[in-house]
Amino acid sequence: MTLLYGVDPRTGDRLEPGVPETSPETVAELGAAAAKAARPLADLPLAGRAALLEAVADALEAAAGELVPLADGETALGTTRLSGEVERTTGQLRLLAAEARGEGFQLDTAEPGFVRGLLPIGPVAVYAASNFPFAFSVAGGDTASAWAAGCPVIVKAHPGHPRTSARTAEIITEALAKAGAPEGMFALVHGFEAGMALINDPNIKAAGFTGSVRGGRALFDAAASRPEPIPFYGELGSVNPVFVTRAAVAARGEEIARGYVGSFTLGSGQFCTKPGLLFLPAGHGLEPVLAEAVAAVAAPALLTPQITEGFRTGVERIAGEARTVAESDGARLFTVTAGEFAARPELTEECFGPTSIIIEYSSEEDLRAAASAVPGSLTATVHAEPSDADLARGLVAELARHAGRIVYNGWPTGVAVNHAMHHGGPWPATTSPLHTSVGTAAIRRFQVPVCFQGLPEELLPPTVR
Amino acid sequence: MTLLYGVDPRTGDRLEPGVPETSPETVAELGAAAAKAARPLADLPLAGRAALLEAVADALEAAAGELVPLADGETALGTTRLSGEVERTTGQLRLLAAEARGEGFQLDTAEPGFVRGLLPIGPVAVYAASNFPFAFSVAGGDTASAWAAGCPVIVKAHPGHPRTSARTAEIITEALAKAGAPEGMFALVHGFEAGMALINDPNIKAAGFTGSVRGGRALFDAAASRPEPIPFYGELGSVNPVFVTRAAVAARGEEIARGYVGSFTLGSGQFCTKPGLLFLPAGHGLEPVLAEAVAAVAAPALLTPQITEGFRTGVERIAGEARTVAESDGARLFTVTAGEFAARPELTEECFGPTSIIIEYSSEEDLRAAASAVPGSLTATVHAEPSDADLARGLVAELARHAGRIVYNGWPTGVAVNHAMHHGGPWPATTSPLHTSVGTAAIRRFQVPVCFQGLPEELLPPTVR
Repeated sequence: MTLLYGVDPRTGDRLEPGVPETSPETVAELGAAAAKAARPLADLPLAGRAALLEAVADALEAAAGELVPLADGETALGTTRLSGEVERTTGQLRLLAAEARGEGFQLDTAEPGFVRGLLPIGPVAVYAASNFPFAFSVAGGDTASAWAAGCPVIVKAHPGHPRTSARTAEIITEALAKAGAPEGMFALVHGFEAGMALINDPNIKAAGFTGSVRGGRALFDAAASRPEPIPFYGELGSVNPVFVTRAAVAARGEEIARGYVGSFTLGSGQFCTKPGLLFLPAGHGLEPVLAEAVAAVAAPALLTPQITEGFRTGVERIAGEARTVAESDGARLFTVTAGEFAARPELTEECFGPTSIIIEYSSEEDLRAAASAVPGSLTATVHAEPSDADLARGLVAELARHAGRIVYNGWPTGVAVNHAMHHGGPWPATTSPLHTSVGTAAIRRFQVPVCFQGLPEELLPPTVR
Repeated sequence: MTLLYGVDPRTGDRLEPGVPETSPETVAELGAAAAKAARPLADLPLAGRAALLEAVADALEAAAGELVPLADGETALGTTRLSGEVERTTGQLRLLAAEARGEGFQLDTAEPGFVRGLLPIGPVAVYAASNFPFAFSVAGGDTASAWAAGCPVIVKAHPGHPRTSARTAEIITEALAKAGAPEGMFALVHGFEAGMALINDPNIKAAGFTGSVRGGRALFDAAASRPEPIPFYGELGSVNPVFVTRAAVAARGEEIARGYVGSFTLGSGQFCTKPGLLFLPAGHGLEPVLAEAVAAVAAPALLTPQITEGFRTGVERIAGEARTVAESDGARLFTVTAGEFAARPELTEECFGPTSIIIEYSSEEDLRAAASAVPGSLTATVHAEPSDADLARGLVAELARHAGRIVYNGWPTGVAVNHAMHHGGPWPATTSPLHTSVGTAAIRRFQVPVCFQGLPEELLPPTVR
């Protein structure tokens, strides 16, 4: 039996004990068990389904004191951030449970003789993220939204935090059993091969993923190449451009500069919404403030050896194409002119970690042209003043074609979990631009519409009456 | 310049004049023009967008006298059916126009500080169907719903009716120009190579398709393999099983038998919702009625030489595995036992044309087992009586996992265009089980959510204020 180990990012040491890799045979058994659980889970009254999510939330909350240090050892994200993340995770489970319990949750539309319901798609595979060991991991948003839709879930653990994943899974399994959940409603698998077996398992009917463009594309390709292709909801790479008008710099340049450094170095720049590009007017004069803010950033311990290496080579690549504005042990900030930026498309590639690029534009024309050329992103941000509302309006209208969320006079890091959130966007931000992985609308990814035509009330499934 | 020709299904003669094949270079030019039209079309007030759909509807209605005979010559569907189909097509355009004009059409959800809008995804490719030369063709449901969403459309004509397609396109182009539509909002291309160029064109952001499993899968694979993969909404193959309880046969067996033959031979069995499988209790005794009904079916002139050949080989294949119950120049009806059916999975493959298979079951257990084993379909139908409501309820609950629409005591042919319709279903019925190609919800396929965070009202796009 092969064992898989996490690595302490602070020391580089291997973390004992290891976690056993899941064999493809076991994946097949878990897939069959999930398929068997699909109908009983779908047939539960919605209040009963919601209670299962709440039971998991309660159990995770009770185990936070154990889970947070375990995750900190594997990720170095710090106990403050990780405690907050457990809260976010349980809050998310409870919000989605409340949604599932809501009036008419599975009833989409009706007209005389026709009722359209929203029924669970079937067993879902979830590929956990490196950078959120709780909120986008075993009991994270993908799992919670698939459960809320009424789907059994099999999670592929991220190799960066195997023990946190395994322990979370034990707590979930126990909580679900105690709450009387259908057997097979949840399972966890470990290892690359298990992940590939899972996406190809005929019992799996949809998949959610958060991670790199390379990994996400490989799984997307596998999902699309199956004899029965399935929806694959991948959240991949994003540069999250920020556009600052000249008036905004004049009014609050220093505040913007500090906010920017805070945002691109938050969590050591390991957020999918990290602002990777900042457009500033040429002659902005903010270099001293930027240098001071960057100097104050502490040296990061990045999540995994792979991410550390990716950051090193990424920064090297950018350094070959851009000038350094500010540098410290904790972060590195680059700059180019708008002309240089337009001529070097590789500068629009995401570099995970505490680095970002400032693009200096000379005219509003330049700025508008840049907005129409940025790649698909999860977010785009505009900083402007009432005096240049026309420019801001034009930028917003254009950027809405390139990003799933437009932020005004704020920062893209920090994604609210609510009803109106959209955490998605055009390729390469996601593989499925119609859907969000955060907020209550995330449930819709795992629901299929069914139209009931001419059925008497008593023959309809109870949840669509 | 290569010319493409239709064929008269009644005579097998080539129809003059030919229609020029579209070169890949022209496809690229049309893609660029569509991309250029995307922003002005998206920025039109919604009433202006709706007016464009209505202008097309008016123009097609006015040209019905010319279009119907043209289509009849290429499809042999008959002028009565085709006149009805033009009405369905214009009705669909007007319904979707009304939807786009409706209050809050592009406003999805809002909460304090957040507004989620539904914006056009960008230029859409539409692959027209053989069997609906108007309603699922150049100005059909895919085109109308993409326009309603605010997307430019490039249609790939079906080779079965090139002249009808070309003339429809001329009428559309003229109507749009007169109504002041953005240039590039619509184009038509002809030929296999043009279709492949279109799905790979970087300016195309989504595609709709109605047709065979083979053709749909090839285009789906191409869409998924692009450097930037795009959503592909394909409606492919479906066997549309019908389940008849013993009580229903006792109460109205003859009516059911006649309704069934009417449904599977309607339009010469060339509907995607044709009932291809009918489950009847053993000893149903309906053979004489079935024989009489089948005998009354006139010899069909199938849409294209390919469909004629596919029907011939399909019927031959089934004849090797099933017994003939009734046969005429117009239709052929087969039967097997439930045991034979379970052992011969190739009987669940769709055979386009006027043929169907009756499966005789011995027990309710058999019937329930069959319901849990049918492949993904657009529809599933239950015929039952109040006396066996428990059986019917169980069948409905199970079938809702295998089909996009459940019909009770009716027939699946004839798809209503309304707000609650779902014309979709699990693979191989579609490539995208979350979406419908009929009804107002079809528009959602071509809308992407965008969340506006912290924007003052005056900076929001007018349609999401």
